[in-house]
Amino acid sequence: MTTRMHQEIHEQPEVLARILDAGWPEVLEAGRALQSRGFRFVMLAARGTSDNAAYYAKYLFENLLGIPTALASPSAFTLYGAEMDLRNVLVVGISQSGESPDVLETVRRARGMGAPTLSITNDESSSLAEVADFHLFLRAGEERSVAATKTYTAALLVLYLLIEVLRGNDELGDDVRQLPDWSQGVLAETWQGVERYRYAECMTVVSRGYNLATAKEAALKLMETSYLFADAFSAADLRHGPIAMIGRDFPVLTLVPPGTGRSVMMELVDSLIDERGAELLVIGDREATEKASASFTMPGEHPEELSPILYAIPPQILAEGLSRIKGRDPDSPRGLSKVTETW
Amino acid sequence: MTTRMHQEIHEQPEVLARILDAGWPEVLEAGRALQSRGFRFVMLAARGTSDNAAYYAKYLFENLLGIPTALASPSAFTLYGAEMDLRNVLVVGISQSGESPDVLETVRRARGMGAPTLSITNDESSSLAEVADFHLFLRAGEERSVAATKTYTAALLVLYLLIEVLRGNDELGDDVRQLPDWSQGVLAETWQGVERYRYAECMTVVSRGYNLATAKEAALKLMETSYLFADAFSAADLRHGPIAMIGRDFPVLTLVPPGTGRSVMMELVDSLIDERGAELLVIGDREATEKASASFTMPGEHPEELSPILYAIPPQILAEGLSRIKGRDPDSPRGLSKVTETW
Repeated sequence: MTTRMHQEIHEQPEVLARILDAGWPEVLEAGRALQSRGFRFVMLAARGTSDNAAYYAKYLFENLLGIPTALASPSAFTLYGAEMDLRNVLVVGISQSGESPDVLETVRRARGMGAPTLSITNDESSSLAEVADFHLFLRAGEERSVAATKTYTAALLVLYLLIEVLRGNDELGDDVRQLPDWSQGVLAETWQGVERYRYAECMTVVSRGYNLATAKEAALKLMETSYLFADAFSAADLRHGPIAMIGRDFPVLTLVPPGTGRSVMMELVDSLIDERGAELLVIGDREATEKASASFTMPGEHPEELSPILYAIPPQILAEGLSRIKGRDPDSPRGLSKVTETW
Repeated sequence: MTTRMHQEIHEQPEVLARILDAGWPEVLEAGRALQSRGFRFVMLAARGTSDNAAYYAKYLFENLLGIPTALASPSAFTLYGAEMDLRNVLVVGISQSGESPDVLETVRRARGMGAPTLSITNDESSSLAEVADFHLFLRAGEERSVAATKTYTAALLVLYLLIEVLRGNDELGDDVRQLPDWSQGVLAETWQGVERYRYAECMTVVSRGYNLATAKEAALKLMETSYLFADAFSAADLRHGPIAMIGRDFPVLTLVPPGTGRSVMMELVDSLIDERGAELLVIGDREATEKASASFTMPGEHPEELSPILYAIPPQILAEGLSRIKGRDPDSPRGLSKVTETW
């Protein structure tokens, strides 16, 4: 039986195309309005998968726009009653349902404190969509699997387009237009050798830069659907302590994206295999996957800033597949529901 | 044989007293100078244990001063060449050695971009101490164990005192003066029932609010010294996905600090035991530890904001003890050194 998660993973090219088509004018309008309102800092409020999209946004805002960007601690607003000075701080709430109570409360209070606010949701009539000054709609269609897939890549693309507008680009670039095709190409590839992870109980995920978001999202998907104990690190943070736990046969999922972080990741792959005897699953180009025990070869060349949208897909396929092989139901993980109510 | 880590854990009351005595005038002076220079946003650059201290600082700056605070992505400065707008952004570099290359580069470049800069190190003549406008010295004495303990709690206290000055408090409060005695009281307590974790291979650590920093530091200590696969979550983030992986007999280290987050944590303890059959190690007051499989009962009552300095100690004792029981050397974890060179 095909799972909903499998179906929704395969809807991603269509969702990306819909955002480029119907979503772009909305992003253009909101981006211009935000730009004329002006802001010097950004604060991103989100939980779970949306929080991983927020990580990607932090790298975009800081690296491409030079705007210092914080991930919000919702508890500052919901538990500690912080009186935050939010003049010129753009507060962005991301939630596929638009009903996450703490994200909603953060945006609501931030607006009350005078901050310009933006929400990104997959439900135009959700509370979060209504409470913010500006709203961007994910257009992903209803997501029925509890484990989010298409709403994640949709959020990444919407955030990327927003940055494009804020950088003064009024036309869709050639690269971004190719995303639907590129994602179709990724979906046509398959994992090699993952059967050996049938009995794995844990997995560390490592990447660098923009794809730290991808690593975090991969770890979350593995935890949610395969009940693997998974954790994500940047290559740098791994070396500041956690690497001590990685010994012989320890499974490490390594994302080797193109661009600036590639050489750092290649060094890490070599040292984990040669010095630690770790078991590497590698997602990357042909050269990067050569020494791996299991691999997913990424087709084609993509700009580093867009790579998280494509590199998110193989971990989704891995999590869904391992979940089924282990006899779990990826659509209904134990103890989870589509809207999580936390404060 | 007594390990260096054990010795350094037990030096903490003395280090805290030294900071309150010799360190306070220095913090007072730097804090006043920073206040007159003015800033609206804070960016904290750190790695490893120091990064966990930065998490604590984020909660202090936001909750007590209302200043939006970001954890820096050093790669923005070291890999991506971001041209960051850092006017009125206080950039703080934390590193016990003061020689972490990426933290150093972040502070150096931030100062070049016009940001007021502050460094916090355990070496007054380190590069980081010299590169920043202001410097705060940890006064922890040489730390010889690779796993940081006393420099961590020293950094927390220095950060707390800095916030006190920035809030306009020119006198040491009664609570903070009691920290050396309180920490002595914690060191006089012992863990109950930890032998059952001799063969544990992984552990999830959970807390909330200010003590999310403590949870992250506990996970790092367990990874570094006991080679446990460990990960830390806030109670809210755990419910947004990762909780699915927690099944029967899964070991969860739960920190139940006093104050605002206590009731949320008590609910979580109950649901993890009753609904999941998880194996709970609990650090908290007598009531919080009642149902636990292993526990550390915190003596006395402490204000929530100061609790991370005290709650950091039982996980250090746990990590050092489990490391020895498992036949590891907590002073020299494989693959780690005292100064980690990452970019």
